[in-house]
Amino acid sequence: MKLKRKLRYGMIGGGRDAFIGAVHRMAANLDGQIELVAGCFSSDPGRSRLSGLDLFIAPERTYSSYEEMAKAEAALPEDQRLDFVSIVTPNFLHFPVSKCFLEAGFNVICDKPMTFDLKEAKALKKIVEKSGKVFALTHNYTGYPMVKEAREWVKKGKLGNILKIVAEYPQDWLLSALEADDQKQAAWRTDPKRAGASCCVGDIGTHAENLARYITDLEIDEICAEFTSFVPGRTLEDDGNMLVRYKGGAKGIVYASQISSGEENNLSIRVYGSKASLEWHQENPTDLVVKYPDKPRETLKRGQGYLTPVAQAACRIPPGHPEAFLEAFANTYTNAAEAIADEIQGKYPRKKGYDFPNVDDGVYGMAFIETCVKSAKAKKWTKFPKL
Amino acid sequence: MKLKRKLRYGMIGGGRDAFIGAVHRMAANLDGQIELVAGCFSSDPGRSRLSGLDLFIAPERTYSSYEEMAKAEAALPEDQRLDFVSIVTPNFLHFPVSKCFLEAGFNVICDKPMTFDLKEAKALKKIVEKSGKVFALTHNYTGYPMVKEAREWVKKGKLGNILKIVAEYPQDWLLSALEADDQKQAAWRTDPKRAGASCCVGDIGTHAENLARYITDLEIDEICAEFTSFVPGRTLEDDGNMLVRYKGGAKGIVYASQISSGEENNLSIRVYGSKASLEWHQENPTDLVVKYPDKPRETLKRGQGYLTPVAQAACRIPPGHPEAFLEAFANTYTNAAEAIADEIQGKYPRKKGYDFPNVDDGVYGMAFIETCVKSAKAKKWTKFPKL
Amino acid sequence: MKLKRKLRYGMIGGGRDAFIGAVHRMAANLDGQIELVAGCFSSDPGRSRLSGLDLFIAPERTYSSYEEMAKAEAALPEDQRLDFVSIVTPNFLHFPVSKCFLEAGFNVICDKPMTFDLKEAKALKKIVEKSGKVFALTHNYTGYPMVKEAREWVKKGKLGNILKIVAEYPQDWLLSALEADDQKQAAWRTDPKRAGASCCVGDIGTHAENLARYITDLEIDEICAEFTSFVPGRTLEDDGNMLVRYKGGAKGIVYASQISSGEENNLSIRVYGSKASLEWHQENPTDLVVKYPDKPRETLKRGQGYLTPVAQAACRIPPGHPEAFLEAFANTYTNAAEAIADEIQGKYPRKKGYDFPNVDDGVYGMAFIETCVKSAKAKKWTKFPKL
Amino acid sequence: MKLKRKLRYGMIGGGRDAFIGAVHRMAANLDGQIELVAGCFSSDPGRSRLSGLDLFIAPERTYSSYEEMAKAEAALPEDQRLDFVSIVTPNFLHFPVSKCFLEAGFNVICDKPMTFDLKEAKALKKIVEKSGKVFALTHNYTGYPMVKEAREWVKKGKLGNILKIVAEYPQDWLLSALEADDQKQAAWRTDPKRAGASCCVGDIGTHAENLARYITDLEIDEICAEFTSFVPGRTLEDDGNMLVRYKGGAKGIVYASQISSGEENNLSIRVYGSKASLEWHQENPTDLVVKYPDKPRETLKRGQGYLTPVAQAACRIPPGHPEAFLEAFANTYTNAAEAIADEIQGKYPRKKGYDFPNVDDGVYGMAFIETCVKSAKAKKWTKFPKL
Repeated sequence: MKLKRKLRYGMIGGGRDAFIGAVHRMAANLDGQIELVAGCFSSDPGRSRLSGLDLFIAPERTYSSYEEMAKAEAALPEDQRLDFVSIVTPNFLHFPVSKCFLEAGFNVICDKPMTFDLKEAKALKKIVEKSGKVFALTHNYTGYPMVKEAREWVKKGKLGNILKIVAEYPQDWLLSALEADDQKQAAWRTDPKRAGASCCVGDIGTHAENLARYITDLEIDEICAEFTSFVPGRTLEDDGNMLVRYKGGAKGIVYASQISSGEENNLSIRVYGSKASLEWHQENPTDLVVKYPDKPRETLKRGQGYLTPVAQAACRIPPGHPEAFLEAFANTYTNAAEAIADEIQGKYPRKKGYDFPNVDDGVYGMAFIETCVKSAKAKKWTKFPKL
Repeated sequence: MKLKRKLRYGMIGGGRDAFIGAVHRMAANLDGQIELVAGCFSSDPGRSRLSGLDLFIAPERTYSSYEEMAKAEAALPEDQRLDFVSIVTPNFLHFPVSKCFLEAGFNVICDKPMTFDLKEAKALKKIVEKSGKVFALTHNYTGYPMVKEAREWVKKGKLGNILKIVAEYPQDWLLSALEADDQKQAAWRTDPKRAGASCCVGDIGTHAENLARYITDLEIDEICAEFTSFVPGRTLEDDGNMLVRYKGGAKGIVYASQISSGEENNLSIRVYGSKASLEWHQENPTDLVVKYPDKPRETLKRGQGYLTPVAQAACRIPPGHPEAFLEAFANTYTNAAEAIADEIQGKYPRKKGYDFPNVDDGVYGMAFIETCVKSAKAKKWTKFPKL
Repeated sequence: MKLKRKLRYGMIGGGRDAFIGAVHRMAANLDGQIELVAGCFSSDPGRSRLSGLDLFIAPERTYSSYEEMAKAEAALPEDQRLDFVSIVTPNFLHFPVSKCFLEAGFNVICDKPMTFDLKEAKALKKIVEKSGKVFALTHNYTGYPMVKEAREWVKKGKLGNILKIVAEYPQDWLLSALEADDQKQAAWRTDPKRAGASCCVGDIGTHAENLARYITDLEIDEICAEFTSFVPGRTLEDDGNMLVRYKGGAKGIVYASQISSGEENNLSIRVYGSKASLEWHQENPTDLVVKYPDKPRETLKRGQGYLTPVAQAACRIPPGHPEAFLEAFANTYTNAAEAIADEIQGKYPRKKGYDFPNVDDGVYGMAFIETCVKSAKAKKWTKFPKL
Repeated sequence: MKLKRKLRYGMIGGGRDAFIGAVHRMAANLDGQIELVAGCFSSDPGRSRLSGLDLFIAPERTYSSYEEMAKAEAALPEDQRLDFVSIVTPNFLHFPVSKCFLEAGFNVICDKPMTFDLKEAKALKKIVEKSGKVFALTHNYTGYPMVKEAREWVKKGKLGNILKIVAEYPQDWLLSALEADDQKQAAWRTDPKRAGASCCVGDIGTHAENLARYITDLEIDEICAEFTSFVPGRTLEDDGNMLVRYKGGAKGIVYASQISSGEENNLSIRVYGSKASLEWHQENPTDLVVKYPDKPRETLKRGQGYLTPVAQAACRIPPGHPEAFLEAFANTYTNAAEAIADEIQGKYPRKKGYDFPNVDDGVYGMAFIETCVKSAKAKKWTKFPKL
């Protein structure tokens, strides 16, 4: 049930110069149902304070450390207390910050990949379960209406048996050694101490994997991965190609690259079934193409009345007025907010489930990264672990 | 100069079941710099009240009439008073509501077409000038970054002399007689008493005209228009085709249609110069294509570092994460908000000017509509009036 | 009925440096059913002779004038005599050469526009009728399979009533004053003595008109045209924009341009009906897009089994192996050859008719050009003549 | 040097109901430089005879067996003798037929894959070398002008170092068990006795490999392949996914599929270099897209004056008049014919080399197939053999 007030949230990370924090804030702002009232925007207290001013946050609710923030906010009276926090720090902090706020009684929305490694992910899962709180992971691409439409098509059997998946995510932003110039994003993402065992697959390969799983519900059986660090001096991979065997016999190609010249965020997926196939491109997210062996291909368009209710519900404006990345990201927030409102009202979780990526998706994603790393090192087909 | 607080605004129109009001609100929300605090959301007081509750507006600031709202809000102390109002009513109310709030001392953002007819438009211009307030008109398509890029290319002479413009805006939503079923939007837009002398050209043809003028700065000399009401029983045109002669010798085709089966909001523009041409499509707003007679065509992409500063400033997120309609609409709000902040601080207008559609654009648009109507009736080439 | 031998033909025009002659020859060659055995390839006898050698034509069948050729070839025994001639000269020669060969007893395939003016066109029609011979006009774009599919869809009523047509043909090859450099093609096409009363509309506007009429069968009622000569010193128009009223109430925009920077041969057509619309682009001729108001848009693809038999019969190879301009041109030849084979066997014309542009299309095209010229000069809506 | 007459050729295979034979004939016909004068069109003498009549072949030059044909044709006087033969039989006959005609003194154009297995391929190489005759293999996709342009860009270093290749060839024609219905093409292609050790990779995977190698000149070091037979009862694979390591450090994904619903012949390639990348799609062969990390992407178009001379020479008609599959196939014929004319005139081979796929490409392709088969069976990375 909807609340009769806006939801209040705080942010950890996302100060001046950060990228993804601003995206989370715009996503939260869009529908006018959520307001930002507190934050620890940087590990640098000065930067945190200035960022708070930029965002019209009361100075007394702008913090210098997340531990301090958790403590102070937990002590506030109910009508001021945060309904949730958004965690938009580098990867290695996702676990401790999530743990801290969950244990302090807050619902959490966290950026991906969920943790530093699979072990942490499993630990976090236990913490979430123990807390009874909402934990949402921003695998934001599943927020696109046409991705939801794709999922519905598969669910309803309109593709027949799934035979093959091709999921790609090429970018070019690490084609040169940005980390040598101390570009902040590049520096931590290519640093095994802050990013974990993988750069490219951890950052964007997981998005491709998550997208494929969201649409098809297929589980991975084995992976053969190949990692390359094309840029001299780089420790972690900037390109990863994977052959995938799914349980039940479907086959997949999943690849991610950060050195593919001229590619922006060219995430795409093709799902081939025995009756029909689907194709979707993140850079042109409005269209979902359905291809049949024996009749004209169809292009389904965002916002149209012929879409499934799930896809229609994810649209804000009529067809032909394109919605894009921020609206999809906002859908993840909206769906998580629905659960958070339930939690506040003591009605969480509902039986019917929710449509946002959760801690299980995070565990799965970390297992995917770990299996890819293992396979690439061993240079052979590697079994996906039991979770 | 930016304010150290969020801007406060009120809305007239845009209650439950309305379309464009929600778009204005999302546009205003996106950047977290503007908050909605008052409104008269419907001419039906009950609907206005319920809409206010949906939007978390204090009941005492949800009004039953716009006159009442103007009076009550003007009486509030400065630290609560509205910084501006957004007017999202049917066309025939744009003038009286704008007049009312401007004269009560408020800045105004108004939906288009600006007024019921050209006479009102000219009258409004005088009121705006007398008031010294900001008046912004939401010809939102000029908020797209790649439209701004296009304008910069023309300004810098990179296209050479402009020879020809082809601007199109086909839709299909009036292909059947929706107004007969009392669909609210269709009912007022096809009703000459509420929409004015034109349906299709007034609603969307003006967008095409405004887009062409924004990009090229060309002024119209003569128009030969043809209007058709394809749907039986409809008084106003649902399709309008125009040949245009611009001052200086360029030629144009501008057309709008609401009966073009399967078209959503397929606004597009091609501008042909003596050295190069540009092509842009609203439904794929990320790309601006430049075509040369003697070298490969180029596709410029939103968010890239090679764009002009004006276009870059209109982007929120990196290339490859598509931004779309709502972000473009938000740019119109952001740019108007900049002027409003100036006005509040006694610094309006700045010498350098602002980048949002204003009362002059509204007068021009009304003159365009009126000239088209006149030409179509007379079935001949018709001079554009002096303004 | 097919002949048990290849058809023999001769060519007038199309020597070294010509453009369209080579296209006709490739079109004739493609299926191995037609052979070139004679020709008068240039008004310059030396060039004609050299061109004949290039093409492996027996020297005694390479002529210095078309009159000589007609006479000599008519005198050959039946088993050597030409089955038809192809006329690929500049426009002003189409009439006399056609007349000469028709009266000498030959079937004719002629390039477009058919004649120098409407008067000649009507005269030619009488000559053709009197001769009893086959006369085919290479409005080649109607040879594309997906254009044939479009025609079938309209015929079967799948679009409902046709409401609107938008047919465009922009190019850029005359953006600079090529004729000043004596470029052969540009020189005659911009010369009223050799090209006729129109350059751009005569050369390519007629293609757009023919395409629209082929697909819809609609007849023109009135035209409002605007012609511009953008390049200084050019007498004939290099850009023509037309509003068109069709009998029965449909409306059209037909435009042609030769000064549109970066456009190659961007012929396209959109046909909007009360139930559905069609869109086709010559530069991507494989796809025919169907757009509905209430269901996903469909992309029909060349070669597929779901196409109408007429479209399938116009395909040579399976889907996904693109066929293009030359294959479409060859279809015009193939269909004309079918009639020519009938004529040779005394079975021409068949009751069921043929699918190639004929002398009536030529007359219609010349009337279109003449009406556009008249309207543009008078600067007003102009009635299409009775034919 | 060009001959002063048409080249004469004979065909083995390609009778009624065959597919690729007709393609070879149209390719040979297109430019009017080559004529078909003899053939053994089917292993069924009756079908061969009827096919010969369809093609206007003299009955005495229509044969019942290829051995008979080779013997009879070799005995003809020089001015009637064949300049070459085209072999368009199922795979298992490529070797014996090629051997037979090469040893009888004829030049050969042969369809791909070259032989039944690598051993035969190596044997054929020796036979070709010993014969001194021209042997061309119709890896026709390298005949596309924009593929040639791509090759030139790589050669000139405009992409920098090649880092990654993604080559894909999905189709759907074997999505159902056509072979069970005795569809002729499907029957032999899925039969290990006639097609060899691979169906999908042998038929189309080799095209993708050949295309990648033609453009980049990279040699394969190792392959990890996965083969699947999705259709029950099928022995050979109908889908093959390969990770590829190239010598020098580049990485590749090469995949082929015949069960990808709704895919026609969606061959595409992306080549990523350290400075720029290229993208080309066979179904839209006119465009070559170049993507840079820091400037607008470019679309190069067939036929334009800014292309490299090699690409321009492969075009027949101006830009905007699309050329497609048959014209590309014809380019392979034209380039082979150039060598054949040299051979006839005792000038073969020229020092500068030729631009058509030859016996070395055939050996490489067979090694590719064999390595894929081996890797897929062993389920591990497998070294490419020394050749």
